[in-house]
Amino acid sequence: MGAVQLYDATLRDGMGGGGMTLTVGEKLRVVHALDELGIELIEAGFPASNPKERELFELLAGEQLHSAEIVAFGMTRRRELAAAEDPGLAVLAQCFAPVCTLVGKSSPLHVEKVVRVSGEENLRMIAESISFLTAAGKRVLFDAEHFFDGYALDSGYALECARAAFEAGAERVVLCDTNGGSLPMRVQAVVEAVREALPRTALGIHTHDDSGCGVANALVAVQAGAGQVQGTINGIGERTGNANLVTIIADLQLKMGIELLPAERLAKLTETAHLIDELLNRSPDPAQPYVGKHAFAHKAGLHAAGVRVDTQAFEHVQPEQVGNSRDLIVSELSGRATVSEKAAEAMVELDDAAAQRTVERVKALEHRGFQFEAADGSFELLMRREGGAYVPLFELESWRVLVEKRADGHVETEATIKIWVPSRADGRRLVRTAEGNGPVNALDTALREAIGEIHPHLREIDLVNFKVRILDESKGTGAVTRVLIDASDGRRSWGSIGVSENLIAASWDALVDSLEYGMQPARERAREGAPLAGERSRA
Amino acid sequence: MGAVQLYDATLRDGMGGGGMTLTVGEKLRVVHALDELGIELIEAGFPASNPKERELFELLAGEQLHSAEIVAFGMTRRRELAAAEDPGLAVLAQCFAPVCTLVGKSSPLHVEKVVRVSGEENLRMIAESISFLTAAGKRVLFDAEHFFDGYALDSGYALECARAAFEAGAERVVLCDTNGGSLPMRVQAVVEAVREALPRTALGIHTHDDSGCGVANALVAVQAGAGQVQGTINGIGERTGNANLVTIIADLQLKMGIELLPAERLAKLTETAHLIDELLNRSPDPAQPYVGKHAFAHKAGLHAAGVRVDTQAFEHVQPEQVGNSRDLIVSELSGRATVSEKAAEAMVELDDAAAQRTVERVKALEHRGFQFEAADGSFELLMRREGGAYVPLFELESWRVLVEKRADGHVETEATIKIWVPSRADGRRLVRTAEGNGPVNALDTALREAIGEIHPHLREIDLVNFKVRILDESKGTGAVTRVLIDASDGRRSWGSIGVSENLIAASWDALVDSLEYGMQPARERAREGAPLAGERSRA
Repeated sequence: MGAVQLYDATLRDGMGGGGMTLTVGEKLRVVHALDELGIELIEAGFPASNPKERELFELLAGEQLHSAEIVAFGMTRRRELAAAEDPGLAVLAQCFAPVCTLVGKSSPLHVEKVVRVSGEENLRMIAESISFLTAAGKRVLFDAEHFFDGYALDSGYALECARAAFEAGAERVVLCDTNGGSLPMRVQAVVEAVREALPRTALGIHTHDDSGCGVANALVAVQAGAGQVQGTINGIGERTGNANLVTIIADLQLKMGIELLPAERLAKLTETAHLIDELLNRSPDPAQPYVGKHAFAHKAGLHAAGVRVDTQAFEHVQPEQVGNSRDLIVSELSGRATVSEKAAEAMVELDDAAAQRTVERVKALEHRGFQFEAADGSFELLMRREGGAYVPLFELESWRVLVEKRADGHVETEATIKIWVPSRADGRRLVRTAEGNGPVNALDTALREAIGEIHPHLREIDLVNFKVRILDESKGTGAVTRVLIDASDGRRSWGSIGVSENLIAASWDALVDSLEYGMQPARERAREGAPLAGERSRA
Repeated sequence: MGAVQLYDATLRDGMGGGGMTLTVGEKLRVVHALDELGIELIEAGFPASNPKERELFELLAGEQLHSAEIVAFGMTRRRELAAAEDPGLAVLAQCFAPVCTLVGKSSPLHVEKVVRVSGEENLRMIAESISFLTAAGKRVLFDAEHFFDGYALDSGYALECARAAFEAGAERVVLCDTNGGSLPMRVQAVVEAVREALPRTALGIHTHDDSGCGVANALVAVQAGAGQVQGTINGIGERTGNANLVTIIADLQLKMGIELLPAERLAKLTETAHLIDELLNRSPDPAQPYVGKHAFAHKAGLHAAGVRVDTQAFEHVQPEQVGNSRDLIVSELSGRATVSEKAAEAMVELDDAAAQRTVERVKALEHRGFQFEAADGSFELLMRREGGAYVPLFELESWRVLVEKRADGHVETEATIKIWVPSRADGRRLVRTAEGNGPVNALDTALREAIGEIHPHLREIDLVNFKVRILDESKGTGAVTRVLIDASDGRRSWGSIGVSENLIAASWDALVDSLEYGMQPARERAREGAPLAGERSRA
């Protein structure tokens, strides 16, 4: 097998899943995460579809990526229209993206019953659309939709579609199992047959998980000669999802010996998978292969002992290779080493005892529902507290929030805070009341009014993101609430977390961490020019 | 391919997953559900392991099953002990179960490093244990643990283990990919090699999902000649889980043409899968192949239109074959036809004009951040409002929520509601105040106290899930909030939605929709026995 190209469809096909929405800013973060992981082609969307997609492409045009190329997605031209007159193709031709993927039909059922054109016209639609874009200087991929179903109905016609794309200048023909119904034996046989029929055509594979074989289908296709594999992070997508690119990457590299990513990038797999789940406000699946929290968990007594004897006896790969960790032997030592490393990155002084206390504290908090993966700000504050370098912004006396829907339908929200700056023992008492369009907004406004005079830098800190997840959802509105806030001062962004039975209390905790992190002395120094190692860069 | 035997390991290997516990009574329900589905062999547990397992086997001895046989699980004898003296084997010999599965080693790594016996002694352990149980009148299966890893290290020894089991009287040798690390190409090659080396030995396959190929590995093994397939319902199990037997059954029967179950039993697949999730207190995965709520969901306008043209164009199987149903997701992209279809399903009368108004209303609401994909309850209320069949539960005068964090750190939450039942023009005014562990919980409690007397059915409605998402997150805490609530009355479950700048106001709207949907007149009728077409059925 030669080189295999990784093609991520999370931002386009992945968004077909129920409840999947990302803001333009979040999509930029996904693009950078995929680029840093080492994905070669990133399908960012369908720039002709709506103003939000257009805005994304305008922003992407100005972004610096390490190695990834942005792909714009579109369809072959409409029937009975010249390619040059098709408004969708015009948008693709004008778009900055160097690569375009065009989806088109390759199954007679879809040609005749869905698009309702002749087989000949469909071939012209494919060829003319591709020629139009290659003439506009684009690299073009052809997504042959429903290829495997089409091949079963009329293999000759399916091959003609692929041939038309290749001859019109497509750099690759991607065989799509659009309905996800194919099994590995069939995918392997069809890819082999296409290789034989079209030996000069570079192939790709795009599969879905409707038969529970999305990953396996991609693997056998690569084995049979497909040089590009498409999928989505965590397998998100319509119905049962697309093939999970996270699993595919690990399988190809660690099991099939295909060098896709340098080892240090492969070790970002878990982090990348979790980041994208967090952005989508999905709970990461603990049973997800390679990157799930339980993927390397050992429960049974015999196994647990066995793991200590020889990890190879009970683990199919080393969890570290994909950036995951063994659940059983999260040894105190390795936990402490990680914390010490994090402390050094954040320039927090932490001796061994303080690092150990931090490990214990993280364990206790995680047991209560905290999760520090997306809350680097709160984690740093925690290290500072254990290391003695924590400077509180203020001391809380009390806060109160009142939300009222009045008889006239109007909703009023008011928050009052009572705090001591810097502390009750030696400071000034401040009482402020503010209105807001929601309870957290009102608390935020009141707090800023109180301490903004003392800390003018506070004005530069924006809360850019606010996420709520209910843990132990079986308890309904009585469940524990986890609030994540992302904040930014325009240079950097950080996350903070609050967990409580009470949604407002959880929000308050995350809010305070968010502002306190931004105001820590080291941050002040950093604003004056000294760069901080290990900070999350802002897209 | 000849007949293929279905072997369910949910009650034994499946219980290795985190948080998996079932009472003895629940295990009996699982056994009956599997029997009714048509599973041939049900591995019920390890009768020697603890009193609860022994109690289960005692109860099972008295149960009538249609066609399934109960399998007792155990291990080959301890090293340097006669089989007749091994207490575990004695329990199996005395147990009522006609079939025993014995797990034993087949990899030199495990023989030498984990069990620490010679290869010869391991072969004797296998042979003597099996002979002992066959002499006691049992049918014996041998689970060759770590077979694929063992075969890679020393294929000759792995085959010797299988041969020893066969010669000692095992009716079948099950090749286990215990660490789940194998890929389909390898599983196929190894099963074919074993078939060739041991042509008279009946084989089985037992796989895990660590490489994301648990299902595919089982399928290719059957293709290569394994006559038994082992798995668990919904793929539960340690780490990333066992191979999902639900998917395997559908794939084998609907894709590989192997007659496993009569059509009417296959149509119980969705119900069985959901029942077992419910018993385990797991939320069924909406993206699960074949049986997930989204498995046959169609969202994009083109696809939704296409599905009406010819379901075969966009569906790999008919959802009814596995007892699932087509879910046309209501979104901006879908039109009047989808709405009319949804109305018919919910038995809401909606003429063309009302259907058109509903479409317009959905568009306007989706523009504001509503999303009805997961809010079928709110969507039905919306149709009822447009169609004139909406009955409000009450009329709101006002509500107020107070959350206070006091100086002593204690958080207090209190909600007051003022409502008219049924309406201000002609009804009774109710004022109630309630405390809660969060603002929404307090509102929920106050509302239930107010109208629970009038509508006792309200007590049966539980809020099972509460989700918050901030839209347009770039505005931080000033963003629009979307709240989704899932509710259930024990028979059915439904979703509702609220959207507002104010988190509490959004929660209130979703809460009211949730209760109103559960209390609509048609629901009342349904509770009295008339089944509702298109309702999400609850096992």
